[in-house]
Amino acid sequence: MAALLGISGSLRAGSLNRALLAAVGETLPAGSTLAMWGALDLPIFNSDLGEPAAVAELKAAIAQADGVVFAVPEYNYSIPGGLKNALDWISRPPPLSPLRGKPVALVGAASGMSGTIRAQTHMRQILLFSDAQCLGQPEVLIPRAQDRFDATGRLTDESTRTLLARFGEAFVGFVARFARVSR
Amino acid sequence: MAALLGISGSLRAGSLNRALLAAVGETLPAGSTLAMWGALDLPIFNSDLGEPAAVAELKAAIAQADGVVFAVPEYNYSIPGGLKNALDWISRPPPLSPLRGKPVALVGAASGMSGTIRAQTHMRQILLFSDAQCLGQPEVLIPRAQDRFDATGRLTDESTRTLLARFGEAFVGFVARFARVSR
Amino acid sequence: MAALLGISGSLRAGSLNRALLAAVGETLPAGSTLAMWGALDLPIFNSDLGEPAAVAELKAAIAQADGVVFAVPEYNYSIPGGLKNALDWISRPPPLSPLRGKPVALVGAASGMSGTIRAQTHMRQILLFSDAQCLGQPEVLIPRAQDRFDATGRLTDESTRTLLARFGEAFVGFVARFARVSR
Amino acid sequence: MAALLGISGSLRAGSLNRALLAAVGETLPAGSTLAMWGALDLPIFNSDLGEPAAVAELKAAIAQADGVVFAVPEYNYSIPGGLKNALDWISRPPPLSPLRGKPVALVGAASGMSGTIRAQTHMRQILLFSDAQCLGQPEVLIPRAQDRFDATGRLTDESTRTLLARFGEAFVGFVARFARVSR
Repeated sequence: MAALLGISGSLRAGSLNRALLAAVGETLPAGSTLAMWGALDLPIFNSDLGEPAAVAELKAAIAQADGVVFAVPEYNYSIPGGLKNALDWISRPPPLSPLRGKPVALVGAASGMSGTIRAQTHMRQILLFSDAQCLGQPEVLIPRAQDRFDATGRLTDESTRTLLARFGEAFVGFVARFARVSR
Repeated sequence: MAALLGISGSLRAGSLNRALLAAVGETLPAGSTLAMWGALDLPIFNSDLGEPAAVAELKAAIAQADGVVFAVPEYNYSIPGGLKNALDWISRPPPLSPLRGKPVALVGAASGMSGTIRAQTHMRQILLFSDAQCLGQPEVLIPRAQDRFDATGRLTDESTRTLLARFGEAFVGFVARFARVSR
Repeated sequence: MAALLGISGSLRAGSLNRALLAAVGETLPAGSTLAMWGALDLPIFNSDLGEPAAVAELKAAIAQADGVVFAVPEYNYSIPGGLKNALDWISRPPPLSPLRGKPVALVGAASGMSGTIRAQTHMRQILLFSDAQCLGQPEVLIPRAQDRFDATGRLTDESTRTLLARFGEAFVGFVARFARVSR
Repeated sequence: MAALLGISGSLRAGSLNRALLAAVGETLPAGSTLAMWGALDLPIFNSDLGEPAAVAELKAAIAQADGVVFAVPEYNYSIPGGLKNALDWISRPPPLSPLRGKPVALVGAASGMSGTIRAQTHMRQILLFSDAQCLGQPEVLIPRAQDRFDATGRLTDESTRTLLARFGEAFVGFVARFARVSR
């Protein structure tokens, strides 16, 4: 059982990555939950500024969660600037980052064939800075995502649902492994 | 001779990357110039929104420049969210991106030993999406940058100045090579 | 018109990447040619050893070519060890590497959906060391390659052939741009 | 307590990476051991060939170890071809790879400033294919390594020794975390 936080890298209302994250929540093992964080609409990071209230709230939510699932769209062969900007805020000051030692996992949906491979590769490297513990396999890289959800954002593709169930089970186990020692 | 645009990925007033970009401008071959763009303080990209006026201005400045030099600080083992966010705006719509075919080059300063290696690696991959033409060597990766500039942001390290002069000469030649054919 | 060298990263007799490289040769603009290098079956690089004769021959072939097309299979989310080993030999000593300033381009075929994205990303970073000039777009990332070639290794998929023709035209133009200045 | 296997990516007799691996062995917590594997001098991988005896031995050694420490030199901004070639053999067939779920960690020594950053970044991505569990922080990236070892390959730099002790303690804890569940 794990209380997870879901963070979507897209701000769009009709985002397939937000829909994918909702589908992760629906396919978790019994007893585990996924709470969805709202839009990552933060000021651009500048260490000359103080920490905005919205950043403090997000950091607290990460700190309280047993694990975090990031939905990672791919913009320009990398993660969205808005998501990176949120991570720039969250990670300061580095010794106190709520991502330090936190179990995290990635999912991503794309309209093309690559399924956000490049974005997730960057995201893993970024999370290494904070020493977040990132689930390896199974990777959730969803190509041609627009064919797998209906107009209301509900997942309609069974093979994707099966993958998400496998992912959820793996991540809840991964979270438990780290919880036993560090919490 | 080339009219270059300099874009700094840091918003901080005392940014060493902005200082590095200024030093690039001072060491260009005679006849070439570097105009500095201001702070990349844009709204977070959201394709549901229209293009902000500041984005249109930045796109026009890139389109008019013979080449662009990006100063790339490293945050969380990647480029700053604010710089990535600017690229997310600039690159839309992809067929009309002013970065398409544009000669670009990277410099970066860091307080640690790595000199922004990881950030520049990500930046090169990001620029590939837009088919920008990115200078290879010499790479400008400045470690322990705080020891190389004085309190006013003036470059005081001669070995860095020599590297920048070599970089400027290489980039102006690179720009000329592409200009002859495509413009 | 360009005299290109094709180097396949796979040693397998029935390699789809070798077949893809052959198809590149068939779709080049009139007047340009692609000569295929044989298997990259070299000893493991060790700077305690002298340079094998096969390495000297490969270096000479690269030096004489107007440009090089690498076919890059993906093994373990990166380029094959055999290809990397060949590059380790070719690149020494660095100031004399025949890849220095050489126009190069990448193609890759895979049975899965990703089409060698991860391998080509690594390959671009590897080639930066030698300051090879690497073509950006169009990228040739061929997913489900087994469905696009017949049993004899002939390309049967028209959309792939169209992409290869576009790639060949872009690369021959890219080679010409560099030739005009540096040769 | 963990029985670890050390694998060096360099074949050179006087390799600093082999010396670094030896120093890791000397700084492990009491009760833990590091056995050193010999040179990775394998034939170039070719799926048309059968598995060489040396590969079977290496796979068995990995399977028996509680965890593996790889010393990763940087050649051409990536891992050595010889190390990648060994991984190409070890990882087949993928469902039976001895790296699957195996706790692994990386160290690297370089003569320059970057300390093998680029090589270790590639190595982490390569190991993700096999779902090896890779230690995050502390990263062991040793710049100017030639100044930290004496002529016999003994580590003489105390700050490096302190880092290695911290690394060894972290990795033995990481191994224990995974052992408790999966073995």
